[in-house]
Amino acid sequence: MSSIVTLNNGLKMPLVGLGCWKIPNAVCADQVYNAIKLGYRLFDGATDYGNEVEVGQGIKRAIDEKIVTRADLFIVSKLWNSFHRPDHVKENITRNLKDLGLDYVDLYYIHFPIAFKHVPMTEKYPPGFYSGAEAQAKGVILTEKVPLIDTYRAMESLVDEGLIKSIGISNYNGGLVQDCLNYARIKPVCLQVEHHPYLTQRNLMDYCKLHQIQVVAYSSFGPQSYVELQSELAIETVPLFEHATIKKIAAAHGVSTSQVLLRWATQQGIAIIPKSSKQERLVENLTVEKALTLTAEELKEINALNINLRFNNPWDWMGMKFPIFA
Amino acid sequence: MSSIVTLNNGLKMPLVGLGCWKIPNAVCADQVYNAIKLGYRLFDGATDYGNEVEVGQGIKRAIDEKIVTRADLFIVSKLWNSFHRPDHVKENITRNLKDLGLDYVDLYYIHFPIAFKHVPMTEKYPPGFYSGAEAQAKGVILTEKVPLIDTYRAMESLVDEGLIKSIGISNYNGGLVQDCLNYARIKPVCLQVEHHPYLTQRNLMDYCKLHQIQVVAYSSFGPQSYVELQSELAIETVPLFEHATIKKIAAAHGVSTSQVLLRWATQQGIAIIPKSSKQERLVENLTVEKALTLTAEELKEINALNINLRFNNPWDWMGMKFPIFA
Repeated sequence: MSSIVTLNNGLKMPLVGLGCWKIPNAVCADQVYNAIKLGYRLFDGATDYGNEVEVGQGIKRAIDEKIVTRADLFIVSKLWNSFHRPDHVKENITRNLKDLGLDYVDLYYIHFPIAFKHVPMTEKYPPGFYSGAEAQAKGVILTEKVPLIDTYRAMESLVDEGLIKSIGISNYNGGLVQDCLNYARIKPVCLQVEHHPYLTQRNLMDYCKLHQIQVVAYSSFGPQSYVELQSELAIETVPLFEHATIKKIAAAHGVSTSQVLLRWATQQGIAIIPKSSKQERLVENLTVEKALTLTAEELKEINALNINLRFNNPWDWMGMKFPIFA
Repeated sequence: MSSIVTLNNGLKMPLVGLGCWKIPNAVCADQVYNAIKLGYRLFDGATDYGNEVEVGQGIKRAIDEKIVTRADLFIVSKLWNSFHRPDHVKENITRNLKDLGLDYVDLYYIHFPIAFKHVPMTEKYPPGFYSGAEAQAKGVILTEKVPLIDTYRAMESLVDEGLIKSIGISNYNGGLVQDCLNYARIKPVCLQVEHHPYLTQRNLMDYCKLHQIQVVAYSSFGPQSYVELQSELAIETVPLFEHATIKKIAAAHGVSTSQVLLRWATQQGIAIIPKSSKQERLVENLTVEKALTLTAEELKEINALNINLRFNNPWDWMGMKFPIFA
């Protein structure tokens, strides 16, 4: 399967997992169940992905059929932006666990360092960018003044209560990570960020390594995930799958371009959570570490593709100008 | 003189001031005194600049000679990195005021969102990058785990006590500014950051405008200030004074290249604090708003010089990898 890394709290985490973002509800339970059969142990979900009930069904089926035990799995969820207030943090995880049919998750992230106005679950769940009917009509997102330290303290309480085994932070920039390390009683184990050859973030990667924070890459294929979301920036960008450098290296190793992109990450110790609906591709992704090893020269060539190009920037969310990467 | 802007707390601040960084102690009192005579009202100092005694002497002489009153002046100081712990915040401002010979400053900044280990004043003041003899011998800087919110709360207490009229933040990235706005009881009035045509930070500028935070630019001339500090990056970079675009625009208006650089900032509503030891240049800087007005096309041409090039990056400070801009 994939390598296992030991997080700074002693927990073991597979370096390769299945990302659940955009897995359609109709096929999600089956895909999770099949992925477990193929050897996947880590599932990277979130409140916002709107498919935790189905993720839970897939897990339950695999456990019921004794393919795995709960302890074999590493289940991840994420607090959504409209649940940043300390009392809402508990409410969110309680719902995540109910939907997943679990009594704990292994890792729970603060999805974004951005606090939306709270939306009651009875009104809309998951709320996404909805923050009330009036805001919706105006095409805006309302916010709430919740300092990140308050949300983080509530996350720490969830560890104390045993509802989550570890805390992750996601989409934090370096300054926010540093501040977090200054207030954390329980250190975050992972930082999940957009990461691909167009956005290598060398310094942030180095900083995390220095402080024993495991980096988890999302959008390892770059523009790919955003083309289907009609992102103009993504549509205009040369797909990494088609990039001459990546193609050349893939040909040299007799592997696919996606394997080159994933291996480039894992070889730097960065965890990956690619998604696929194709069985063959799922296996390819899970076993990427055995499929090839890039030379130092090839790693350097890929690193040189960096243009600090970010596709998931909350600055652009409905024009709301969230400055977390400014 | 220069324009006056009204800060979000109602205080009036000149758009052009004199930066006191690197003014040699031997000439500092005279330069401040002369600048006041020339019409300067804002002096941007800091613990770290090591010349507050002399800044205070210059101010005192001008007040004694009835050239200005204290109320005419806008005096700025900055908390140094080794005074982030709440009890040290009070200790730092107390020393700033004693050195300056004042009973309040108009604006007090958190100089960097980085907490160094405290150094007692009896050991070294200002301590700069020194954090104890042992660290010094090893060539490292020791840090302290002080969350930014704790330092900020202490800054708010200084406002309550009347020791400072307003709070500024400096070298904060967008994520840190956003978080600050979520915990601030007393909103910061200014953000001071490195800003020049090679580092325009469009989004951060827009965000500050949106939230009524006045941006104050430092290092308006780009590499210039860092060449004398032997920065290789600065030495290798085309000086903005020599840049073809800037020279062309300066020639078109019959002004100096430095006036073009300063006007480019003020025309966008950004405050400036250039330093000069030459009387003629001091006048030129102070009156830059009257000297020229750039066309929309010219502003655009200068904006296009942006290459996100930062000369003052704490990542590089003695190799300590402070990730505030990562």
